Amino acid sequence: MDNKKFGTMIDLLLMQKEFIKRHLAPGGVAVDFTMGNGHDTAFLSRTVGESGKVYAFDIQIEAIESTRRTLLAEGCPDNVTLIHDSHENAALYIKEPINAGMFNLGYMPGGDKTKTTMRSSTIKAVRTAIELLAPGGAITVAVYPGHAEGAAEGEELARYFATLDKRNFSCTEVRIINSPSSPYFTLVEKK
Amino acid sequence: MDNKKFGTMIDLLLMQKEFIKRHLAPGGVAVDFTMGNGHDTAFLSRTVGESGKVYAFDIQIEAIESTRRTLLAEGCPDNVTLIHDSHENAALYIKEPINAGMFNLGYMPGGDKTKTTMRSSTIKAVRTAIELLAPGGAITVAVYPGHAEGAAEGEELARYFATLDKRNFSCTEVRIINSPSSPYFTLVEKK
Repeated sequence: MDNKKFGTMIDLLLMQKEFIKRHLAPGGVAVDFTMGNGHDTAFLSRTVGESGKVYAFDIQIEAIESTRRTLLAEGCPDNVTLIHDSHENAALYIKEPINAGMFNLGYMPGGDKTKTTMRSSTIKAVRTAIELLAPGGAITVAVYPGHAEGAAEGEELARYFATLDKRNFSCTEVRIINSPSSPYFTLVEKK
Repeated sequence: MDNKKFGTMIDLLLMQKEFIKRHLAPGGVAVDFTMGNGHDTAFLSRTVGESGKVYAFDIQIEAIESTRRTLLAEGCPDNVTLIHDSHENAALYIKEPINAGMFNLGYMPGGDKTKTTMRSSTIKAVRTAIELLAPGGAITVAVYPGHAEGAAEGEELARYFATLDKRNFSCTEVRIINSPSSPYFTLVEKK
């Protein structure tokens, strides 16, 4: 989902990317858990460069096609594996530690709005991301509480993040508290 | 209070200053509502420069003395008015719109730990800051929930921020959700 339309004055998308950049270097391994139109995939691809590797997941074939076009149009390095499967199955495909992962929950911008991410698979995918995370690695999770499933998904994720041992992880939530339906995000760092 | 000791991986202090810098230019008017040892006062003084103006408040005379030494040691411009009074009386001293304000709640680092900011005066001071804020201006409020008064102060502030109309203000809370006693902060922007 695109959060530009929410008109928040702090650019949440930009802040997430700046955070990822501080944890991801050329040669790194990154995952776009919610491919959509591939804008985060392209960002990750450029950040890890020729010597790096990016995995990207989506259950919608339209996302794979749209992302392939985005990567081509943006002249990204040939370092991306597009995977047409649910992110909840990420552990079947990724057998190495990852340095960064991005989740942009909700529905695909311009896509079928009835197909949103769901709690059960989202939580499983986020747990997998946390388990795969290398020391010094980071993940970002953007939640869209403007629809009921999004709000419930965010609450369940927050309960899960709260259980992570602060000696090993730092989970920072960034939220516009006078606009409860606006997107918010959590930045997770592994120490 | 100094939050370096909390060892958070995202530098909360730095993030607040970066936020303020995006809203405060040379010639601007800024307020340090919790002077303490004057580190934020010095930062604001340098940011607004010779042509700007900074007001700084503290009820402890030790803070005034410590801040005067900080400003001298750091070679800050002569643009600071040090006010030995509670920040809840800020409206008695400031008769112009402000571009930025900083609150770093709790007790003075190295000072008397029995003298912490208190809900009743903090809320009044934050309301005054919001009322004085010029369009495009911003305030930061750092809360230390590790002590009971700090936790209550933070909750009351969050309830107040939630009431601000999102058409006029954006109140972004940044919080380490797996470390409930760690400091957190709210960034308020006036549109």
